[in-house]
Amino acid sequence: AMDGAPPPTSPTGLSAYVAVSQLLGLTLLATTGAWLGCYRGGVAWHSPLQFNAHPLCMVLGMVFLQGDALLVYRVFRHEAKRSTKALHALLHGLALVIALVGIIAVFESHRTKGIPDMYSLHSWCGMAAFVLYLLQWLLGCGFFLFPGASFSLRGQYKPQHIFFGIALFILSITSCLLGITEMLLFKISDSYSHFVPEGILANTLGVLLVAFGLVVGYVLTREEWKRPPLAEEMALSMDFKTLTEGESPGG
Amino acid sequence: AMDGAPPPTSPTGLSAYVAVSQLLGLTLLATTGAWLGCYRGGVAWHSPLQFNAHPLCMVLGMVFLQGDALLVYRVFRHEAKRSTKALHALLHGLALVIALVGIIAVFESHRTKGIPDMYSLHSWCGMAAFVLYLLQWLLGCGFFLFPGASFSLRGQYKPQHIFFGIALFILSITSCLLGITEMLLFKISDSYSHFVPEGILANTLGVLLVAFGLVVGYVLTREEWKRPPLAEEMALSMDFKTLTEGESPGG
Repeated sequence: AMDGAPPPTSPTGLSAYVAVSQLLGLTLLATTGAWLGCYRGGVAWHSPLQFNAHPLCMVLGMVFLQGDALLVYRVFRHEAKRSTKALHALLHGLALVIALVGIIAVFESHRTKGIPDMYSLHSWCGMAAFVLYLLQWLLGCGFFLFPGASFSLRGQYKPQHIFFGIALFILSITSCLLGITEMLLFKISDSYSHFVPEGILANTLGVLLVAFGLVVGYVLTREEWKRPPLAEEMALSMDFKTLTEGESPGG
Repeated sequence: AMDGAPPPTSPTGLSAYVAVSQLLGLTLLATTGAWLGCYRGGVAWHSPLQFNAHPLCMVLGMVFLQGDALLVYRVFRHEAKRSTKALHALLHGLALVIALVGIIAVFESHRTKGIPDMYSLHSWCGMAAFVLYLLQWLLGCGFFLFPGASFSLRGQYKPQHIFFGIALFILSITSCLLGITEMLLFKISDSYSHFVPEGILANTLGVLLVAFGLVVGYVLTREEWKRPPLAEEMALSMDFKTLTEGESPGG
């Protein structure tokens, strides 16, 4: 019963799933904060607590912001493609900066405490996720934001960009679960098997990370929820099809 | 230069990717065997080595066989749907039985050694993966193998079955990585950070698990590689469309 033209609607269910993803994302951050705050002495930079900046930054950057960057094409389905693209790149860029801070935190903390770097499966997976994520971001900017790449090149790279984008999001979540397991076995190896509250809280954080990945993954892959091309994009791609129909590949 | 009609061909690249996936799968099993054989005393049932049956069974069942069961619709793309379906169900069934043996191994080993069950994030993720995998298999048999479910019900459930199938495969791999990290921190916590060969071998197993998941996931999600419906399936689904076009949902 509001007057004026109704705004363009989203498919049924999409908004609910997106709302759940955001609730889960905020719960992730709160749970990470609670773990570090209640059981690990809190977070501070130039102090023995510097390590604790690592889990907080990685959950915020590599999971929450990365996940939200993937969702923008579903959420802003009626905005111009250009602005949605810019937001997608911006959120991923922000995620990368925050993740870099988190990585510096763990390397500096290791140096202070004399702990070797990069020996664990967590560090291998996490570093691979970060480096490939940075590479994917650079490639994405090169292909889709700067005007150099041709339509046909963009069309060829796009499915790879989407596949590796989702794969890196999953690898990031997996790396977080490995980090949780490592941290629990370093800090509470004696009491973990007795179901102490810290262990249960950290396990719950792991389950929430999996749930966030599931909901975001579901929203991204559901066929009916994919972003419909706008009228002008349709026209452009038609023109393009007509233009290139006679071309041979690689010509 | 062979005579006789050529067999139906697969899309370019698909066979190569499937071959790589199988090589990775076999390398996974060999690496798991090498870890347990060279560093953990081997595998035996009624002995202190019973625990070692757990990683071997889980990698074989929940990763290699589960992954291959997902690939059958891409590999046997020109066989009758019915036989491909039966093979899909059979491989998943075999994976479930082998995984059950692996789960019994760890529970019996815990009981013998007085170690509590189900306290770790690995056990939570792994048990969730197994129970949901069993449920998914039962639902799959109910909807797609037994003749009770209607065409429309099958069509509604199919996208969910595919999404959760891939999600459970990923969760299974993640659980394996968590298990590797746990086992290394239980067994070689003092030397792991010194890059001892066992740590590097087990980390490599983790990387191979990720690579197997990536290749299988790529084959499954590539649009051009999806199984084309056979002529008779097309005809059936046309008939069905004509029959149901006038129906209201839920009618």
